[in-house]
Amino acid sequence: MRQIDAWVLTIGDELLRGEIVDSNKSFFSERLLRLDIETTRHVTVADDPEPISEQLRAATSDGARIVLISGGLGPTRDDITTEVVARTFSLPLERDQATVDRMRSYFASVGREMSENNAKQADFPKGAEILANPLGTAPGFMLRIEDCLIFCTPGVPRELYRMVDQEILPRIAEERAANGAAARPVRAQLLRTFGLGESTLDQELSDIAQGDPNLTLGFRTQFPDNLVRVVARGDVPAEAESKLRHAVDAIRDRLGATLIAESDQTLEATVGELLLQHELRIAVAESCTGGLLSHLLTENPGSSKYLLESIVCYSNASKMRELGVSAEVLRKDGAVSEQVALQLATAMRSRTGADLGIAVTGIAGPDSDEHDTPIGTLWIALATSTGTRARQYQLTRDRGRNKRLAAQIALEWIRRTVIGLELPDETFPRLRSAAFDPAKPSSSHPARSEQRT
Amino acid sequence: MRQIDAWVLTIGDELLRGEIVDSNKSFFSERLLRLDIETTRHVTVADDPEPISEQLRAATSDGARIVLISGGLGPTRDDITTEVVARTFSLPLERDQATVDRMRSYFASVGREMSENNAKQADFPKGAEILANPLGTAPGFMLRIEDCLIFCTPGVPRELYRMVDQEILPRIAEERAANGAAARPVRAQLLRTFGLGESTLDQELSDIAQGDPNLTLGFRTQFPDNLVRVVARGDVPAEAESKLRHAVDAIRDRLGATLIAESDQTLEATVGELLLQHELRIAVAESCTGGLLSHLLTENPGSSKYLLESIVCYSNASKMRELGVSAEVLRKDGAVSEQVALQLATAMRSRTGADLGIAVTGIAGPDSDEHDTPIGTLWIALATSTGTRARQYQLTRDRGRNKRLAAQIALEWIRRTVIGLELPDETFPRLRSAAFDPAKPSSSHPARSEQRT
Repeated sequence: MRQIDAWVLTIGDELLRGEIVDSNKSFFSERLLRLDIETTRHVTVADDPEPISEQLRAATSDGARIVLISGGLGPTRDDITTEVVARTFSLPLERDQATVDRMRSYFASVGREMSENNAKQADFPKGAEILANPLGTAPGFMLRIEDCLIFCTPGVPRELYRMVDQEILPRIAEERAANGAAARPVRAQLLRTFGLGESTLDQELSDIAQGDPNLTLGFRTQFPDNLVRVVARGDVPAEAESKLRHAVDAIRDRLGATLIAESDQTLEATVGELLLQHELRIAVAESCTGGLLSHLLTENPGSSKYLLESIVCYSNASKMRELGVSAEVLRKDGAVSEQVALQLATAMRSRTGADLGIAVTGIAGPDSDEHDTPIGTLWIALATSTGTRARQYQLTRDRGRNKRLAAQIALEWIRRTVIGLELPDETFPRLRSAAFDPAKPSSSHPARSEQRT
Repeated sequence: MRQIDAWVLTIGDELLRGEIVDSNKSFFSERLLRLDIETTRHVTVADDPEPISEQLRAATSDGARIVLISGGLGPTRDDITTEVVARTFSLPLERDQATVDRMRSYFASVGREMSENNAKQADFPKGAEILANPLGTAPGFMLRIEDCLIFCTPGVPRELYRMVDQEILPRIAEERAANGAAARPVRAQLLRTFGLGESTLDQELSDIAQGDPNLTLGFRTQFPDNLVRVVARGDVPAEAESKLRHAVDAIRDRLGATLIAESDQTLEATVGELLLQHELRIAVAESCTGGLLSHLLTENPGSSKYLLESIVCYSNASKMRELGVSAEVLRKDGAVSEQVALQLATAMRSRTGADLGIAVTGIAGPDSDEHDTPIGTLWIALATSTGTRARQYQLTRDRGRNKRLAAQIALEWIRRTVIGLELPDETFPRLRSAAFDPAKPSSSHPARSEQRT
């Protein structure tokens, strides 16, 4: 019995010109892994018959059992995939009348004539099995060449994604069951962490997979989080599952609250769930994040149950008028200060009657304010029924990432408060400080303050 | 004289598992195009010597003049690129003392010991030219194999990006100048459009490049915008430039205001520039967009000069308390209504003294409100010195994309108002309605209203 290997071939000049980041390949490979199938090659070639044909021959002669081809099924002259596949394997093209009829009725429904170009999309190599595409005009198809299944799919991501899930994965699973091909059971799980840099994370967890060739930990950054991928293999599914479970248990013990989800669920989704569960309502005052924190909080369906109001008090006038910050404090301490953060959070909570009031004020950059507050200075305050507290961080990124990181620290403070944990002072500024510049160590001056209200 | 072709080879199991979307390839190819160099192959292989070596041999024997390898330069056991490159071309490895010293002083500066694993990163194939990596520990290198330049670079995107721009492109330009290799001049420009679907856009512009093999138009969606890429070739640079300029002129004439930037500059950046230029100040009332519109407006440095304040009035209580919406109107018309949009925009402008007040209220989905307002219903109102007007749209996407599209329509209304153009009623709901489902045509019920204040 052989391991099932897969190749993914994407076709398109626009991919080779760098105009599009090709996410179809990673999508398909990730899905295949759920069926214990590993991808061994990703290749992209131009809309040109020669390299397409060459890669098809290379894949089949290399022993790939699955080849996914994405792109080149459209109605234009550039779309040559079907023709090239047929020619490579010396198969005639045959027009499928059901597909022609379906397209004709679609075009009629939108009041357009179907062109001969479109009719071309109903041609398939003899022996192909047609794969439905409910989201577009171009159906895909599957062709069996010896013991290799070749899948031709559209390049439009949402059409491809649906076709893979609805049409392709079931066929692969069936094929595998039918001929008992030896896929070695693989189980994988993503874990989302926030607050430790990628290399620190790697170091913290390094011994967990050490010496076990059937267990690997992978790390990647999805700013501002770091994801850990645990991949476990076994001779039987139960072995892979148990290995995975043990590894995840060990990582959970090691990381504690730094582990923010045992999946790739975002922090904003987790915070939304927690607020709904605990029936807590929140109000937000944002300055430097400019609406981003509220935007993240409202990405979840049902967020109107927990978000009462946000004020993006971007100007000093707004801070004074809306939230009662005193002109005196603004003049003396500046808008980015402990006092202002405390006043904003407290006022936001009391004016809305929310359970939690959170405020974010800082200098996202690239310019400072009239007090020459250092770029990256961030004050966050959280008002609860027991009082208002403020914390300071020093961020070191560019404007866009400082905004994102500030919003994430605020979300994390909410999460920890709801589940009864403290927010650490020092961890967050260390987030993947990647600068290799001995002259410029990343600064970190955490501070903390408290105000009883 | 030969055309210069490039191959890009990325290495990493995590890429083949689909854990990362590989953006390094598109970055490098896009940069090469600026030097008139076209990429002919993108390949990804595992951290495994055999396929790496095989692809290196294939690239050089295929006549590639440039090979970029990304990944596998790290300190761990998996990082085998340098070793495999050396072995493939029968070159010994030599340790570079300057690199060792530099790494040692870096580790000393952060209080850590340098491990033997790290020292491995100072090994290079004999004859290699070292490429500085100011953002990480792993330097890159360039190797010349006959008339092919092989560049080995780290896989971390920001390290790669910098190395490409600072170290690699200058060497390629120099090499090309030195041996007069025949790169056929290529000039390309991106254009950003909003309001027409991709296929409509294609149809509108189809004749512009027709019959000219040296001019191509490419289309891609960057939701909610569509980008047009114009690529012109010529025998001399002036010819390519003039062809490009004429094509862009023709597209500008054809598209009118639908063309929102003659580059890939975002709409929020354009709106920010316009508000600064015209010294206009804005205030925002958001409901369904939940802070996204304000977030986009504050992505630009200097946005505190034009954004005075936003209120995310997510609850009815907030709409009444903050912006004086009447309980009567909320009960009768619901929060997603013309009257509420008009009241929000007008109140937002007058309370802040802004030049422009904009309000967005709608049902992003997936749930409706207590008035059973159809999901996707959107009311936007804009208050200026001459009065307040409201417009209705019917969006048809999921929650996240409905939020994004609503924010974009608001931004576009601001842009058009500042430059003295009307916002069309009907165009936007047509944005790339991709559903191929005759039973479910995308609905579009634009409406318009006006209120003098």
